[in-house]
Amino acid sequence: MPTDIEIARAARLKPVTAIAETAGIPEQALNPYGKFIAKVDTAAIPDFDARPNGKLILVTAINPTPAGEGKTTTTVGLGDGLKRIGKNVVIALREPSLGPCFGVKGGAAGGGYAQIVPMEQINLHFTGDFHAITSAHNLLAAMLDNHIYWGNKLDLDARNIALRRVMDMNDRALRATVSSLGGNGNGYPREDGFDITVASEVMAIFCLARDLADLEERLGRIVVGRSRAKQPVTAAELKATGAMTVLLKDALMPNLVQTLEGTPAFVHGGPFANIAHGCNSVIATRAALKLADYVVTEAGFGADLGAEKFFDIKCRKAGLRPDAAVIVATVRALKMHGGAAKEALGQEDLHALQAGLANLARHVENIRKFGVPPIVAINNFTSDSHAEHELIRSFCRNHLGVEAVICRHWAEGGAGTEELAHKVAELAEGGDADFAPLYPDEMPLKDKLETVAREIYGAAGLSLGPRVAARFAELEAAGHGHLPVCVAKTQYSFSADPTLRGAPSGHLVPVRELRLSAGAGFVVAICGDVMTMPGLPREPAAERIHIDAQGQIEGLF
Amino acid sequence: MPTDIEIARAARLKPVTAIAETAGIPEQALNPYGKFIAKVDTAAIPDFDARPNGKLILVTAINPTPAGEGKTTTTVGLGDGLKRIGKNVVIALREPSLGPCFGVKGGAAGGGYAQIVPMEQINLHFTGDFHAITSAHNLLAAMLDNHIYWGNKLDLDARNIALRRVMDMNDRALRATVSSLGGNGNGYPREDGFDITVASEVMAIFCLARDLADLEERLGRIVVGRSRAKQPVTAAELKATGAMTVLLKDALMPNLVQTLEGTPAFVHGGPFANIAHGCNSVIATRAALKLADYVVTEAGFGADLGAEKFFDIKCRKAGLRPDAAVIVATVRALKMHGGAAKEALGQEDLHALQAGLANLARHVENIRKFGVPPIVAINNFTSDSHAEHELIRSFCRNHLGVEAVICRHWAEGGAGTEELAHKVAELAEGGDADFAPLYPDEMPLKDKLETVAREIYGAAGLSLGPRVAARFAELEAAGHGHLPVCVAKTQYSFSADPTLRGAPSGHLVPVRELRLSAGAGFVVAICGDVMTMPGLPREPAAERIHIDAQGQIEGLF
Repeated sequence: MPTDIEIARAARLKPVTAIAETAGIPEQALNPYGKFIAKVDTAAIPDFDARPNGKLILVTAINPTPAGEGKTTTTVGLGDGLKRIGKNVVIALREPSLGPCFGVKGGAAGGGYAQIVPMEQINLHFTGDFHAITSAHNLLAAMLDNHIYWGNKLDLDARNIALRRVMDMNDRALRATVSSLGGNGNGYPREDGFDITVASEVMAIFCLARDLADLEERLGRIVVGRSRAKQPVTAAELKATGAMTVLLKDALMPNLVQTLEGTPAFVHGGPFANIAHGCNSVIATRAALKLADYVVTEAGFGADLGAEKFFDIKCRKAGLRPDAAVIVATVRALKMHGGAAKEALGQEDLHALQAGLANLARHVENIRKFGVPPIVAINNFTSDSHAEHELIRSFCRNHLGVEAVICRHWAEGGAGTEELAHKVAELAEGGDADFAPLYPDEMPLKDKLETVAREIYGAAGLSLGPRVAARFAELEAAGHGHLPVCVAKTQYSFSADPTLRGAPSGHLVPVRELRLSAGAGFVVAICGDVMTMPGLPREPAAERIHIDAQGQIEGLF
Repeated sequence: MPTDIEIARAARLKPVTAIAETAGIPEQALNPYGKFIAKVDTAAIPDFDARPNGKLILVTAINPTPAGEGKTTTTVGLGDGLKRIGKNVVIALREPSLGPCFGVKGGAAGGGYAQIVPMEQINLHFTGDFHAITSAHNLLAAMLDNHIYWGNKLDLDARNIALRRVMDMNDRALRATVSSLGGNGNGYPREDGFDITVASEVMAIFCLARDLADLEERLGRIVVGRSRAKQPVTAAELKATGAMTVLLKDALMPNLVQTLEGTPAFVHGGPFANIAHGCNSVIATRAALKLADYVVTEAGFGADLGAEKFFDIKCRKAGLRPDAAVIVATVRALKMHGGAAKEALGQEDLHALQAGLANLARHVENIRKFGVPPIVAINNFTSDSHAEHELIRSFCRNHLGVEAVICRHWAEGGAGTEELAHKVAELAEGGDADFAPLYPDEMPLKDKLETVAREIYGAAGLSLGPRVAARFAELEAAGHGHLPVCVAKTQYSFSADPTLRGAPSGHLVPVRELRLSAGAGFVVAICGDVMTMPGLPREPAAERIHIDAQGQIEGLF
């Protein structure tokens, strides 16, 4: 089989105007960026807001393992499959981050015959959304230090600045810095540092905003630090939000691209899945729902983090009502959850597989707790055996009461997901969905977190020191008690211990710190190491990336 | 008269496809960015390289004063004037920098009825070129620190890193920093800092590169620092240039926009005019010359810096042969050069004007030293008197042997520059041009600098300490003696003292430092304070910039 990049290059892309036509987007609503990408101005689509919504399908996964699951690939494949069986479909995905392309990660636009294209542009600057977010964030930071420089009327405490700077780059040298050195003209030296752009609260806000006005209001609520009198100081008080909004104005329109099979896809926004909610923009998802009968979208990490945040943060805040959820698993990953070593994954191992199904089972049960009907997609690998597939299918049918469908989109494109597409359509049309978030807004923050820990992670409860307990009280007192919680913990386990695969129970979730994202509208609970600025590996991919003699980009994937 | 922004908004823009048609660019060569901007792939234009070149007209100016001259406005106005008299014309300008928009500067797309549009996009993210340059530069910086982190095989001396980081933002807090703090995982702490993106050597390289292959080669020559054995270490040795080139691939195509009168304009690249050469990209200028009979372009600062660098760096390196140069002056600025106070500029003052003409006279003589025929454009202000205009015209005719033409493009658009357009066309067609740089490649670096100081600045010579003398020798020994020099000094005077207006003579030019820009291909001679990262003022423009109730951007201009 050819490589991802060979497949992408061999593809004959349709002009974005043709893709727009497929999605029912009139030409006057298109702002093209090259021939195959366009930003869509939904305000230019007649009667847009009055249209009914299509069905919303979430693609999520078991806890990831080094074996890989293929969540984005399955999202793309399911979209193509739905199109093949005659459905009017739009896919909604996150934008890849630029920085990690130069590390180890490579691109993030699907794989095999289930890809979105043009993959080079999507993985590099795309339409500049992340650059705009970087600029808006760093303008706020510059205005903050400028405010201190010119007299500090707001009495900002330089020891308690919450806002860091951002760059879309893997650069560990910028994690912890001292800035404003060099004398009088450069300001007051203070501790500072950079996060990668996807970790910016501006990114999370961008992805949760309803429209430009809502964006501006949310930006104004960002708490940049506190005064020496311990009062929060906001971006609005720094008078930064108008200019930040101007910088984000064009970026806020969703980006339209296509799959290899010509299915329309919105690729828009991309917040971290740990300290933020890890889903594409609400604006893109809403636009897709107005345009299509079926919208397939995904959430970052496994379902314990990704689906939970999708439901409890994105759907709650945006009033979205998902109709079905696809849980992606692979035979290989399930065997790792059941104790198999990575080297042994090529051999049939029904024992390990049986044990590993506990991970899948808990995710299936969890999804049902939100009133969303689940279905399992087994992303086929050539090393899978028939007996392994049968074990999963019978376990799902008999013990979980869900269908498990073998998918071959990586090798076959949408033809490999037709069965899944039919089953998903049945499920979504079945009327079983009755979405509700896991906890109500009015539940206290600590109880919300405990609910997630018990109900979703199978934990016995929380473990928190006196400082975190005091911080809960402080946030409630400051009026943030109504916000949902956004858990930042390892994606590899239901617990906070990345080595605990399968379905651990009875553990305690250690809460180390609470961070307020007042603009995004959630409280982040840090439950483990959280890296907000990656580094480059010993031999970064950047060393191999180049343009070859034929003018084509090599090494990016 | 309406404001700049009111004029720009009232304009009916033509689709970029229509502008491309005017310029003879076929649709298959267009990569649109929205409806009114496109990147032009000249490789997709049939027989492009075989075409003859049009006439190249440089617009430069007297030394700037707080009174303003209107160089960009005149460039746009002259382009529109040439179009009105039936010439096939393309304008070539620099891209504005984003950071200064939020300080005091406002936009940089002309003014009055001589503007390029769409001005908001041009002044904000435009096609993302500067973001791409920022990314490429900072990838190199990340790879440098990553190299040190993983063992420092090249034995880079962390005390002698020449490469700083960049951001397109006015942010004084980033001028001097310490990076890689925070412990083992974050690297080895060292002094660091950020320049604004336009000060990046990557920007200068971007603007001097002939094509993608030349770009990559030049990027590889960037000296990022030196080893402990005092040997230069380059970007090529860090294996960064392939990935940097990939990041710059699309950006390297020139951006096509239009004037208010529908004249095609390439707006592409924008290096600093102090530590770099201050002109738009060679690629855009060359493309314009292939497409048009007349190309009007400009250079940063006054002619002592801007035109000199345009001729000695850009034209020398790119093999361009300018046909005429327009020197922009205003009655008000000339009166300031003659000693008038800013408050008194509204009153007729023939005495101050007569004295100030010395500044104009020297620039006219200087331009001739390059074998380029000059002409003077007086950018009209309503406070100018007829007698003042007549004094300039007769002085230019009788003492300098050049025409001085009164221009009213700010108030009247191209109709206000028809006379200038006719005179410029005559001059360019006259066959008087015989361009040659001021000094030959083989002249030693110090002699080159001394030649510029004596011939262009009217100086008695250079003043340099022993360290600078040694550095000249070091650069010669390292094989960089063939490079041109790029002077970084105040733009406000022929001397290094910004308060010395008019035409000072016999001064010494103090050379404080030499910096090698091996990739761009010049040696920077620092002759005064050079600010490579601006700050924000007490009340930054950003505080007023916002989107109004009608969805329009306010406060940007």
